[in-house]
Amino acid sequence: MKIGIIGGGGVGQTLGSGLIALGHQVTLGIRAPSAEELAKPRAQGKPLAEWVAATGGTVATMAEAAAGSDLVINATHGEASIAALSLAGPDTLAGKVLIDVANPLDFSKGFPPALSAEYSGHTSLAEQIQAAFPAARVVKAFNTIGAAIMTNPGLVKGEHDLFISGNDAAAKAVVTDLAHALGWKNVPDLGDLKGARAQETIVLVWLQLIGTTGGTLHNLHVARG
Amino acid sequence: MKIGIIGGGGVGQTLGSGLIALGHQVTLGIRAPSAEELAKPRAQGKPLAEWVAATGGTVATMAEAAAGSDLVINATHGEASIAALSLAGPDTLAGKVLIDVANPLDFSKGFPPALSAEYSGHTSLAEQIQAAFPAARVVKAFNTIGAAIMTNPGLVKGEHDLFISGNDAAAKAVVTDLAHALGWKNVPDLGDLKGARAQETIVLVWLQLIGTTGGTLHNLHVARG
Repeated sequence: MKIGIIGGGGVGQTLGSGLIALGHQVTLGIRAPSAEELAKPRAQGKPLAEWVAATGGTVATMAEAAAGSDLVINATHGEASIAALSLAGPDTLAGKVLIDVANPLDFSKGFPPALSAEYSGHTSLAEQIQAAFPAARVVKAFNTIGAAIMTNPGLVKGEHDLFISGNDAAAKAVVTDLAHALGWKNVPDLGDLKGARAQETIVLVWLQLIGTTGGTLHNLHVARG
Repeated sequence: MKIGIIGGGGVGQTLGSGLIALGHQVTLGIRAPSAEELAKPRAQGKPLAEWVAATGGTVATMAEAAAGSDLVINATHGEASIAALSLAGPDTLAGKVLIDVANPLDFSKGFPPALSAEYSGHTSLAEQIQAAFPAARVVKAFNTIGAAIMTNPGLVKGEHDLFISGNDAAAKAVVTDLAHALGWKNVPDLGDLKGARAQETIVLVWLQLIGTTGGTLHNLHVARG
């Protein structure tokens, strides 16, 4: 599958590497893919030129990454996601599965962050992305854990889960298959995209456990009666 | 131990029954404990007179329940908690462990509820209770699951967890011991009372799983690397 990932940070790079390892063609979309930009050190992840050399993936503009792909992944900062996806091009998103990995985290008061008031409560980032791009087939997934775990669930021991939600059952099936291919055994479905309200809060639990344990290798599992 | 539970609804009754079964003396505190009020059908739980007959517990005013107890549990609706605890009496809460079981749920737009804007984001209900009653030793616990599971964790199979947080380590140890006595094996500590921000979001996941599975017997477990 041709996959366009919007965002060239640590999450985009790690997801991209994992998907390339499964045989997919991955393009990372960034605002200005100049040679200078590709060589630049980045706060998270490696310089993109190194990522290209290591993985065989490509880097392009957000619009190119979205236009040339069968499936699009939003791996931008949550508060910047709708602007970034608008650059990617609303028309090119129409009909495509769009996996929303982003979290609308507000670090303005330090750690722990809160969910941005604009995107939480009786709404969620994923629902607002769906509303902004109604022809895209938005599936919320992979947002509840750190990037390393997304593509390597074996880093956490025992049973643990990748939560998904979305309005389009066929799109959720595509994402569930992708998750299984990445090694995820449990992919609980939180229903339609309102489920993203719960999913976007789960990252607060993941972050709080970093604050109390110092480690990042943990995830939640739904135990049942 | 003498335990005063503020709130006579399903959560207060179920927690009360479970704690009485462990040998504790439990008083449920309600606004107006008249004979008429005790006989009244309740939306959740049984008429309080039946609860008294079945358990040997007692029902009193909120102030009496708090004053006569070694440990106090807030089992009121989250949006009414600070007013109820004020009726219970700020002076009587001083120095006591106060377990906050409540969630500030806003059902104004139906299901799924959101967290009340007043008590979420860069704050939490538990932190606001601590600020309102600074001499109480507030521990957030038991709020992430339904009442039946609180006192009978065996209803959910496999490993699953009771999250706690609080600013007072000795108070958290008291609550952890109580949880172990109720059958909880895993009691992960989410740190100081800011951890309640994560805990109060967890109930949204629990509720969303009800919406998608139809059942209430589920809970989360933290898997680690």
